Parts: sequence; structure tokens; C-alpha cells
Amino acid sequence: MKAVVIKGGKGPAEALSLLDSVQAPDAPGPNEAIVKIAAFALNRMDISQRNGVYPVPPHAPSTLGVEFSGTIEVIGPDSTTDLKVGDRVFGLVAGGAYAEYVRCSTKLLLPYSEPTTLESTLTFLTAAGIPEVWFTATQVLLQIAQIHLIKDRIKNVLIHAGASAVGTAALQLARSVLGPEAKLFATVGSDEKVKFVESVAGADYGINYKKYDFVKFITDKTDGAGVDVILDLVGQDYFMKNLTIAATDARMVLISTISGGVVEHANIGMILYKRLRIEGTTLRSRTIEYQSEIKELFQKYALPHLLSGEFVNPVDKVFSWEDIVQAHKYMESNAAMGKIVCVVD
Amino acid sequence: MKAVVIKGGKGPAEALSLLDSVQAPDAPGPNEAIVKIAAFALNRMDISQRNGVYPVPPHAPSTLGVEFSGTIEVIGPDSTTDLKVGDRVFGLVAGGAYAEYVRCSTKLLLPYSEPTTLESTLTFLTAAGIPEVWFTATQVLLQIAQIHLIKDRIKNVLIHAGASAVGTAALQLARSVLGPEAKLFATVGSDEKVKFVESVAGADYGINYKKYDFVKFITDKTDGAGVDVILDLVGQDYFMKNLTIAATDARMVLISTISGGVVEHANIGMILYKRLRIEGTTLRSRTIEYQSEIKELFQKYALPHLLSGEFVNPVDKVFSWEDIVQAHKYMESNAAMGKIVCVVD
Repeated sequence: MKAVVIKGGKGPAEALSLLDSVQAPDAPGPNEAIVKIAAFALNRMDISQRNGVYPVPPHAPSTLGVEFSGTIEVIGPDSTTDLKVGDRVFGLVAGGAYAEYVRCSTKLLLPYSEPTTLESTLTFLTAAGIPEVWFTATQVLLQIAQIHLIKDRIKNVLIHAGASAVGTAALQLARSVLGPEAKLFATVGSDEKVKFVESVAGADYGINYKKYDFVKFITDKTDGAGVDVILDLVGQDYFMKNLTIAATDARMVLISTISGGVVEHANIGMILYKRLRIEGTTLRSRTIEYQSEIKELFQKYALPHLLSGEFVNPVDKVFSWEDIVQAHKYMESNAAMGKIVCVVD
Repeated sequence: MKAVVIKGGKGPAEALSLLDSVQAPDAPGPNEAIVKIAAFALNRMDISQRNGVYPVPPHAPSTLGVEFSGTIEVIGPDSTTDLKVGDRVFGLVAGGAYAEYVRCSTKLLLPYSEPTTLESTLTFLTAAGIPEVWFTATQVLLQIAQIHLIKDRIKNVLIHAGASAVGTAALQLARSVLGPEAKLFATVGSDEKVKFVESVAGADYGINYKKYDFVKFITDKTDGAGVDVILDLVGQDYFMKNLTIAATDARMVLISTISGGVVEHANIGMILYKRLRIEGTTLRSRTIEYQSEIKELFQKYALPHLLSGEFVNPVDKVFSWEDIVQAHKYMESNAAMGKIVCVVD
């Protein structure tokens, strides 16, 4: 089959190449399927993996790609799924989506139909870019912070990198779960992104971190109360600021440490006297069972709003997979505001 | 009524004095009771509070004392409790137990009977020293770390200060919930305490931290797997060691920061890639509702074993409350291995 390979095993964007002699996946086992891929979406971890610096889970194939849309070609024996051959699906996989065919768990597939009315917004292009971002937002806010279970005591929420794909998803999900009363704060890196998170993603306040100290900004806007939930991916540079702006009993979820992972003078006394919960998490390294719990929360709390068009999952740019080198370079340029999708054409 | 007061509002042990002209508590409201106290137990926070450095909850009386045993004297109107006047009870309160009478929530009272057979081990002396320690152990292991809900994946547990009252309780509770297969590690400060935690508290390995590096010790004994649950009260000096010895998906609960609260070079990257959950907690500052959730877990998972004598809650020394100065000095000497109890005689 055709698939994107990395010449030499790792390298820059130019090392990517579409070959037509790649071995097809093994036959699916129970609760597995082979999906003929229509489109896949890019993620930052694809770049890390291409550079040889990502801790790829042991069971993942060497081919890049964790999310896709397509059509079910084969379903493994003794599977308990309601899905059937020919169904249009999108889903998450530990790797291998930059290919004509991928072997995946039926527990992480979701069916969709091409839109037949103008109101429906999900196509194979938009669906391909949903799983990684929305499963992550669902995992952070629902499975870990459990905001749906404690929503009565959540007044203020802080989403860092609010204009990122995960940030945009988290803001919409938080608004939907918590209702109009909750105040949503989002840090972003430009005034353009302030407008974006306030108009598109439902933030009450976009905070341009290049102009404002978010601790001071939020302290002012909450009369000193601070925030009850924090989604962070900055790490090192924000750790003490996050602890400072956290309210009593706040929950902070760490999904990356972009600025580094070592904090000088970490005041962990704040964890004690504010009774904070801090949890680090990743999505790709998790078991199928764990990911399928996320899928169920996603189906309940997010998918209906994505299907109705109430939630947006912006696609910034679509490439043919023959232009995978350009697609990776575009992602590396940090110019995208939304998903980058490749069509397997 | 009689009560222990602190002359001058704060000071050393000698500032404590038993006066007989202290104002009795106000009449109880709904779901409150007045208990005539038989005995109260000492806690380290009593010393901090006496020294004027403890953040006393706003609703607490100025009189010291958070745990006691005694007899119900009055029950407030419109109470929903099954308890009745004359019942022997022990319980937790935000303050005021160093007195003849205390006003408290009926939701935090537990009934007990004086032993009529040799098999029953709970007396007014032992009962007085149970709530603070056992509610704390229950809160940490069950309400926060939830080891009863995830026991299948807990193989190794680390309890710091294993010979302390909370450490001893936590070891026994962990053993009871997790069964004989779990490996329990406990750090202690002497070889005598190694013997104590291994013979009395059910630890598999007491580790004298003055002789051994607990990270190396546990790495060896678990073939590098590390621990799934950590109860810490040391803070600063142990933070990075705890993160280092934590297994993937480990949960760490911080209940104090005895060595200080500021960590130099805190590698929070470990929180991310090990997917750790770190939570700080305190007991006394919590709402009655939260504490009564702990009480229910305690009644289910610990109380039956305390009543049967399977769990021990060692009382080190009993004083008359007339000797409260000596009792506080004894606690400050750090010689006690178990609770210090004062009889209101």
C-alpha cells in the first residue's frame, strides 16, 4: 500500500516521502478493524516523532499519524462493535494514519455521515482533525478535572494557549458544561488571538501574555478569588504563577511542558495550604480501555455539539498527502490557527 | 465550666492553665450536640495553635482540642441523628475539646460502648485518640487516593513517617484494603521504629532514613517499578525523591511540609511523563459535609477493625488534664510512639 515514510528513520520535513511499496497492516484481531483512510490530520507530536525525539508507545507502528477519517474495510473476528464494513468513521490510533490503510481498535472509532443538509458541519475533512484535540480536551476537563461532577463550585477557569486547537476545544467544552455563569480566561500570544478566543471559542477574557501578567489580570477580574481549574501546557515558566492564581481546592492538569520541566524555587507549600490537585497526563500512551472511556465522555458531552455546528473545530489548511513535506513545514512555521489536514487522494 | 486556656493568648507549654470560669458553649443548633468530655487527645497542631502560628479555621473556638470522647448531654432541635442523650461517643471538632463541654456536629460523632468482654479494645481513653489520626488516614488513602477503587493496580505503597500516629494508621488501613500481596514501605527515623512498623503496623519494609536512601532501597525491592501511592508529610526534602520513586500513574498526597515548602530544581516534567497526581490536603479546614463523608468511609473501612482489635491505635501515655503543661511538654519532646491522651477528671 501507499504510506508516508521517513527516509533514514528520522529527519527534517524533507525526509518525508510517499512510497507505494509499504507493507499493509496485519489482519485485524477481535475488536479491531482495517480502515481505508480518506484524510488524516497533523499533530505537533508527529514532528517530534519525525525528529526521533518522541517516546512512541511500544505497540505503535513506525508510520506517523494518530487521527483519521475513512471507511471500514474489514472488521476482525469476534468483534462486539455495532459498526460494519462500509461505515464512514473517524478515530484515534497509536500510529499509522499517514497511510492508505490503518489497523485500529473499533472501540476508538466513531461513525459519521457526510452532511446532507447545510446545518450539518462534519465532513471527512473536519472529522479527521477531531479525535486528538477533542479527546484531549475531554480527558483534561471531564475525565481528570471532572468539571461535570463539581460544576457547582467552579466559578473561574484558566485555559493556557487558548487559541491552540486543544485550547479552543477546551474553552468551548468548558462553556457548554459550566454554563454562562462561569468565567473563562485564556492566555494567548497576540491581540488577534485575543479576538479569536473571545469571539469564536467562548472565552470571557483573552489575555495577551506579551502585554499582561495573567496573575494580576485574573486577580483583578475575580476580586482575588483566583481560578478553580487550570489547563496548562507551558510548564516551567507558568508553574508558580499557576499555583499563585489557583483558588482553594483548584485542579490543575498539565499536558505538556513547552517552556521546560524544571522549576527553580517551587513553592509546594501552596499545594498543601490551598489543597490543590495537580495531575500530569498524556493521551497517546494510554490503554485502549482508558481511551475508550474518554470516547464515551466525548460522545456525550462534545460530539452532539460538533455535529450541530455549535462547537467549531477549525481546519486551517488542507493539503494533498503528496504534499506532506509542505504540510509539515507549514505546521513548523506556527502560522496555523486550526487543524492541518491531508487528503489521501 | 472548666477548660484549658492559654494565658496571654499564646505562649509556651507553661502558658496553659486549667480555669474553672470559662464560658460554656452556646446552645446547640440543628444537628449539633453538647458533649460532656471524658477524655481528649493531643495533636501537633495544638502546639502550633498554642504558639499562635496555626491558621485556625474562622468558625473554631479559641480553646484548643480537636478530638475527644464523652457523653451526649444535649442534642440540638430539629436534628436528624439517631444518637440520643446519654450515648457514649467520640468525635472530631474544629476546636474546643480541652474543656468540660464541647459543642459539635452530630455528623462527626461516633457511638461506642465500654468494653464488656476482653475482646473489645475501645475505651474512652483509646476512642479519644482515634478521630484525627484515622480520619486523616482515611481521607488520604480512600477519599483522595481512592485505593479501594483502584486496588487491582496498586502493588507498592510508600508511607513516610511510618511510625507516627497517622503513619501507623495508614499502614494498617492500606494492608486491610489492599490485602497481603501489596508491598508496604515505611520510612522511619530509628531501628527501633523499623521493628515497630514491621511488627505492629504491617509494613513489609521499615526504612531507617538515617541509614538508607529510600529511593535506592525501594528501587531494589520493586525491581525498579517504584510505588503507586505515596503519603508524604516531609515536603521540600522528599519532593524530588518522591517523584523519582513514583511509578507511572502514581498518586501522592501531601499532608504537611515539615522540612519546608520550597523545592529548588523541582522537575515537574516527571509529573507529566509519569502521569502523576499530586494533591495537598488538610482535615481541620474542611466543611462538616466533607468531614462527614470521611466519617462514613472510616465507619466502613476502619472502625470495625478498631472495635475488633485488629487495628491498633496505640496510646503512649495518659495524663490528667490538670497536668496539661506536662502533657504538652511530653509531646514537644518527640518521645511518644502513639497518642497522648488527657482525662477530664
